Amino acid sequence: MKARITVTLKTGVLDPQGKAIEHALDGLGFEGVNSARQGKLIELDLEETDKDTAMAQVTQMCEKLIANTVIENYAIELE
Amino acid sequence: MKARITVTLKTGVLDPQGKAIEHALDGLGFEGVNSARQGKLIELDLEETDKDTAMAQVTQMCEKLIANTVIENYAIELE
Repeated sequence: MKARITVTLKTGVLDPQGKAIEHALDGLGFEGVNSARQGKLIELDLEETDKDTAMAQVTQMCEKLIANTVIENYAIELE
Repeated sequence: MKARITVTLKTGVLDPQGKAIEHALDGLGFEGVNSARQGKLIELDLEETDKDTAMAQVTQMCEKLIANTVIENYAIELE
């Protein structure tokens, strides 16, 4: 089973990487970009085949290692 | 219109960040993780409201700035 985790900064948390992308796009002549935010994408290949067990397992991984829940949100998709 | 761009390393390209996650998960006692790959997620808030124009614009942004197409793939989702 594959898990796809997206980690994004919570609203209000400063995002210098996103700002850099915004300015770089502007510098390259791309107009009409109101804002850019950068997050992380983590793809895991799991041995687990049961969806509920996998979801519980990946949630634990996010809480303990993958996301900093003080400043980041995470979303998990399983396929 | 919002654009969500995921940038992932092409198959075969070494991914030290992914390897670090894999080892850290293993060290924390999470078993059954065959592999981990890390990518980037970029969320843009665009002024453009036409889907086709937005897609063409974001594709250009990816080709010119956001993705390094030699080693990375990108996927665009518009909402």
